[in-house]
Amino acid sequence: MALRSFYALVVGAGPGRAAAIRFSKAYPVVLIARRAESYEDTVAEIRQGGGQAIGIAADVTDAASLQSTFDTIAKELPDSKLAAAIYNVNGGFLIKPFLDLKQEEFQTAYFGTAGAFFSFAQKTLPLLLESVPDSPHPPSLIVTGATASIKASAKFASFAAGKFALRALSQSLAREFGPQGVHIAHAIIDGLIDTPATKGMNNNVKDGKIKPEAIAESYWHLHSQPRSCFTQELDLRPYSESF
Amino acid sequence: MALRSFYALVVGAGPGRAAAIRFSKAYPVVLIARRAESYEDTVAEIRQGGGQAIGIAADVTDAASLQSTFDTIAKELPDSKLAAAIYNVNGGFLIKPFLDLKQEEFQTAYFGTAGAFFSFAQKTLPLLLESVPDSPHPPSLIVTGATASIKASAKFASFAAGKFALRALSQSLAREFGPQGVHIAHAIIDGLIDTPATKGMNNNVKDGKIKPEAIAESYWHLHSQPRSCFTQELDLRPYSESF
Amino acid sequence: MALRSFYALVVGAGPGRAAAIRFSKAYPVVLIARRAESYEDTVAEIRQGGGQAIGIAADVTDAASLQSTFDTIAKELPDSKLAAAIYNVNGGFLIKPFLDLKQEEFQTAYFGTAGAFFSFAQKTLPLLLESVPDSPHPPSLIVTGATASIKASAKFASFAAGKFALRALSQSLAREFGPQGVHIAHAIIDGLIDTPATKGMNNNVKDGKIKPEAIAESYWHLHSQPRSCFTQELDLRPYSESF
Amino acid sequence: MALRSFYALVVGAGPGRAAAIRFSKAYPVVLIARRAESYEDTVAEIRQGGGQAIGIAADVTDAASLQSTFDTIAKELPDSKLAAAIYNVNGGFLIKPFLDLKQEEFQTAYFGTAGAFFSFAQKTLPLLLESVPDSPHPPSLIVTGATASIKASAKFASFAAGKFALRALSQSLAREFGPQGVHIAHAIIDGLIDTPATKGMNNNVKDGKIKPEAIAESYWHLHSQPRSCFTQELDLRPYSESF
Repeated sequence: MALRSFYALVVGAGPGRAAAIRFSKAYPVVLIARRAESYEDTVAEIRQGGGQAIGIAADVTDAASLQSTFDTIAKELPDSKLAAAIYNVNGGFLIKPFLDLKQEEFQTAYFGTAGAFFSFAQKTLPLLLESVPDSPHPPSLIVTGATASIKASAKFASFAAGKFALRALSQSLAREFGPQGVHIAHAIIDGLIDTPATKGMNNNVKDGKIKPEAIAESYWHLHSQPRSCFTQELDLRPYSESF
Repeated sequence: MALRSFYALVVGAGPGRAAAIRFSKAYPVVLIARRAESYEDTVAEIRQGGGQAIGIAADVTDAASLQSTFDTIAKELPDSKLAAAIYNVNGGFLIKPFLDLKQEEFQTAYFGTAGAFFSFAQKTLPLLLESVPDSPHPPSLIVTGATASIKASAKFASFAAGKFALRALSQSLAREFGPQGVHIAHAIIDGLIDTPATKGMNNNVKDGKIKPEAIAESYWHLHSQPRSCFTQELDLRPYSESF
Repeated sequence: MALRSFYALVVGAGPGRAAAIRFSKAYPVVLIARRAESYEDTVAEIRQGGGQAIGIAADVTDAASLQSTFDTIAKELPDSKLAAAIYNVNGGFLIKPFLDLKQEEFQTAYFGTAGAFFSFAQKTLPLLLESVPDSPHPPSLIVTGATASIKASAKFASFAAGKFALRALSQSLAREFGPQGVHIAHAIIDGLIDTPATKGMNNNVKDGKIKPEAIAESYWHLHSQPRSCFTQELDLRPYSESF
Repeated sequence: MALRSFYALVVGAGPGRAAAIRFSKAYPVVLIARRAESYEDTVAEIRQGGGQAIGIAADVTDAASLQSTFDTIAKELPDSKLAAAIYNVNGGFLIKPFLDLKQEEFQTAYFGTAGAFFSFAQKTLPLLLESVPDSPHPPSLIVTGATASIKASAKFASFAAGKFALRALSQSLAREFGPQGVHIAHAIIDGLIDTPATKGMNNNVKDGKIKPEAIAESYWHLHSQPRSCFTQELDLRPYSESF
């Protein structure tokens, strides 16, 4: 497999599929998901469209699985450098009265979002730093947040704790690695995403769910910003969403 | 002058010039500034590049001047509808101990930002609403904010009061007109903009000032977002800026 | 009239009455309101309880009226210094579609909140600075905000603009005058206040409206904080209020 | 030991000692710390002053230790109900470049702040709910936050992640349990606390470190707020601190 010199990495579902397709217009793309079924179609679609893509089944919340993922990437794309990493993992979404939450659920939500991102960022930041001198756009780490990243509603304790922590990480990393040329951005997705999983929800409002392709386009815009003009945080919300 | 069916309106300096050039790739552009010198070159540059542009000298903080501006636009572009309005006015920037501030200075800062925007929004929103059914992108009102929009530093009382109020307006309008299909976005410019006015400031850091062209590109991105995925607020900051 | 050496100043209605009563336990109190009817009962009540109080009818949004107020205070309390000023003015509360707002209404909202506070702060800050060396508690300027100080809802454009600006002022002044020993605090009142004006609203929830006496107690707490431990901002909200 | 019918629970050092002393004016106090040395003096001091106090050595980040703590309390104070719980644990404070952080450090920061609070809140909330009908003040859960609760600085990634998550929990719980009559408050301590641990730091500014007694007084004020007027969040900062 002879890939070009920079690649993009997309972890997780939701807007992940569309982000992979969008970034494949510029880079070979590595898709990571727990199960191969989650990325196979996307990989095929990218290849049919003339792009390059590989998929790796991995659990990024598991250190060993994460390590093996990066070993695989190094083998598959030996001469490629990381241009953009998109972290799009919603670990432990759960709406539940606080006193009914199990400690495991809380920990799963935390480690499935902030904890896994910690490991993911430790793996990707050194790669992104290496790309600073010659990547076509400032190397980027883009993180998908949610309404719960800035507002902790009743019964969202575990999910919001993870998402607040994830936002803290993205903010701290932006302050540490921004001056080194790496662009770290956090997107607050405030609304349902229009995926098969939300079919039938909110279905009376036209365009009332966020198109994944539109998120992907905004992520690409973030990636394409020159270093004189980085966005650290933006919200993405359907016109019809009350906020 | 036979302009196409939608136009963009750009008020004010700073990133205004670059925004006008960027939006002129898609629309005829109307530039508004106090003095003709502020827009003449830009109008000429756009025309030389094959785009369409007109300039109107007006003081948007003055109701009569604002009215006459829109009368002129209606005459000059009789068959055109408003696709995007960019409000980029920094009235009354001033760093001064609070007890040295004159009431006039405070009022100037307030009316030069929030007050003028109030009038501007009242003029443009009906026009933007008319464009909802058939404009190429959701009609947009994009507002330039600053660090002082979210943080009121010592000695920035008057400037911050105006900028906080401007942000309040943009937020309230987004909630009222977003559901009607108009996209209202607020950009927090956190850093110096690389214009002739800031020449010599901060000059030791490469790319340490925001390129107006990059702001313009982000504004275009905001305008191009479909209504399923509007950004209400984003920050724009040089990689080297501490925040 | 022989008042003790420090006095408190309370401007405006809402929680103003209760604040005056609370502060009168420690200081003579000057009440300012537009109409004498607004403070007469409170002045009488304080006097009956053995406290000292005077009322002054004035429009603090008017410069001349404000000046005359401070002239009167200087005459009435010649040997007293200002210990605490409570600014509790809700100018221009209005819920209205943006396009129905008149420019005068927008200006009134501004002058009745941020604009009037600007003048009020310019009058009181020099007095508060004079009290730093020997006042019983750090001299305080306490500002009453609202939900609209941090969230600009649809149809709240003018009110929120004024309240955002007021918050900006309080924040900037805290940063400038805090280090000089003056305590500037901003309270976000998030809910209805239980006054005659809100009688009949929200009446099904016990304690669902904020007791003015409780606000007054929190204001007194703010005033009593030593300079090693100032609160700049706090929210005050009924237990039953959703937020 | 015959204690009165309501008690307060104070976990952790920093302002914990002063909070215990302040709350002991009204309630018997249970102090919890890892090592008996941390509370022995305080317990003795409270007793000498005529108050009632017991200390329990426990690691609240450990589920078994936490359970045994509450078993001990139930045995020692069989007829007492919980009036106030103060959570004052700063697990895993660490300033370190992100790529030097170990995963264990990140996890420790989490378990020492948000994770431990999760368990602590699950133990105390049922007790606080039981106290709603007859406690002298609304039963309270007061959480100590820090600057890093709202701003994630460079090199503060692990600490800020824990503190952001802790804030999320306090906010979500306030929304869930406030309407049931339990007061959950979060204090952002923005500055050094004047304890033996900070001796010699910042020592040129008089009152430039926060007095623990002042924090304790604010915590008592929070606890004493009636349910019509709860504060969910406030900041506490020396007058001289820049922010």
